[in-house]
Amino acid sequence: MTAAIIGLGLIGGSFALSLKEHGLCQKVVGADLSADHCRKALELGLVDSTAPFEEAIAGADLIALATPVDTIPILAIKILNRVDDRQVVMDMGSIKQELCEVTAMHPRRGRLVATHPMWGTEHSGPEAACRGAFRGRTVVICEKERSDRDALHTVERIYTALGMPLTYMSAEDQDLHSAYISHISHITSFALALTVLEKEREEEHIFDLAGGGFESTVRLAKSSPQTWAPIFLGNKYNVLDVLREHIHQLQILRRMLEKDDREGLVEAMKRANTIKRILK
Amino acid sequence: MTAAIIGLGLIGGSFALSLKEHGLCQKVVGADLSADHCRKALELGLVDSTAPFEEAIAGADLIALATPVDTIPILAIKILNRVDDRQVVMDMGSIKQELCEVTAMHPRRGRLVATHPMWGTEHSGPEAACRGAFRGRTVVICEKERSDRDALHTVERIYTALGMPLTYMSAEDQDLHSAYISHISHITSFALALTVLEKEREEEHIFDLAGGGFESTVRLAKSSPQTWAPIFLGNKYNVLDVLREHIHQLQILRRMLEKDDREGLVEAMKRANTIKRILK
Repeated sequence: MTAAIIGLGLIGGSFALSLKEHGLCQKVVGADLSADHCRKALELGLVDSTAPFEEAIAGADLIALATPVDTIPILAIKILNRVDDRQVVMDMGSIKQELCEVTAMHPRRGRLVATHPMWGTEHSGPEAACRGAFRGRTVVICEKERSDRDALHTVERIYTALGMPLTYMSAEDQDLHSAYISHISHITSFALALTVLEKEREEEHIFDLAGGGFESTVRLAKSSPQTWAPIFLGNKYNVLDVLREHIHQLQILRRMLEKDDREGLVEAMKRANTIKRILK
Repeated sequence: MTAAIIGLGLIGGSFALSLKEHGLCQKVVGADLSADHCRKALELGLVDSTAPFEEAIAGADLIALATPVDTIPILAIKILNRVDDRQVVMDMGSIKQELCEVTAMHPRRGRLVATHPMWGTEHSGPEAACRGAFRGRTVVICEKERSDRDALHTVERIYTALGMPLTYMSAEDQDLHSAYISHISHITSFALALTVLEKEREEEHIFDLAGGGFESTVRLAKSSPQTWAPIFLGNKYNVLDVLREHIHQLQILRRMLEKDDREGLVEAMKRANTIKRILK
């Protein structure tokens, strides 16, 4: 099998490595608008060759889209316009509603499998690509009934080989859930980093104590703005919904603290502790 | 050397293990108001024996206080009332202003070394104690000029043997810094957990997608309310200061998103990215 990976950043690069690692593809061709990304991906051995977009997809059995989410719907249509009945197209973006909407009536919609592998790190670019990525993480497949059976099966087989449990939902549900379990964590981390940086400016102190809890909570603030701005904007209503609730919860904790309401704080934290059952 | 550990939870238990692991103490006696904690600490081999508080400190060369922060100032005074000129007392609490204030005029203040080892996990109780704790994390020592030279030296030697870089500051600075790099991370995690749990109730959906970013941001929400309520309340003004700034930063991001201000979002995230230099 030959794969074309469109977008050679953290996700595309790691997926390219995984395909080779698991012997799923003999040949991986990469395409990226950035000549620098193409050069690095070749140097790092993420792909066997690079080619312009049209050329890369022409001979590929599998075409994986791993570009910023705001570029995926248009690219998906352009790719569907070009593929035949045996080629399989998949995307790996974090949001799905727009993609599913704009491809819904495409005569080759069946060749597309809309997926969201729930994996990532705070690093970006081809240098961030790593072996062993994806393993153990869930992958969401949206609107599977709109994909041709063979295309769906190919993509399921690949993710299963990568060690990923599969789950199926509507594009609406996937975007809502992703807002809660991924997008909000990033917003919070960005805001926390800005809070500390703001204070640091006032205090002219060095925060040489960072570590542990701080590190894990703020880690995501290193994430790429080019990746995340389109996700937040593309999933605006869900993200705003959860962001408003999060600010509300912080304000409740703030008022309890202001009033020395120890009991209230303890009760709230006990309730928060029940998150254990979600984290497994 | 014989050590008495007062408080056999995560911190006290891990410290007891570390003292033995590094051959720093021949004998470790534990004390805890909870008979259950005492029993478990013995079963787990964290301590060689347990004893009532007064008995435990009587024969100890080193007395380490690792109880919830609201109990530390009074316990420290009671211990200082009982120790002689060769015994060394140290506390391991997350805040320091009240402790330093109430012990300031004690005739045996010199025997006390006020410390905050910047290590912890989201787990609690004797079962949470672990080997190899503390290594590589900074320990803050407050108002070292108020400690006798030999007492300070003993504590410095122990933390250094545990692989911890030492740093010195006033109690005021330590509490401010801890609010920024530890306490706020916990508040944010608790609030984030409450946000998700709130939504889950509305949606009756299973969040079976949790992992990665979510896990690392929400992990601290598993932390013990009995540990953290006294810390938040004891460091109330600093915590409120940083909490207000954090809510403010979240509101700025929210407004940008509401107005589709992509440039503003990207700029804010780029600024947040500079947290890299603090995280090392």
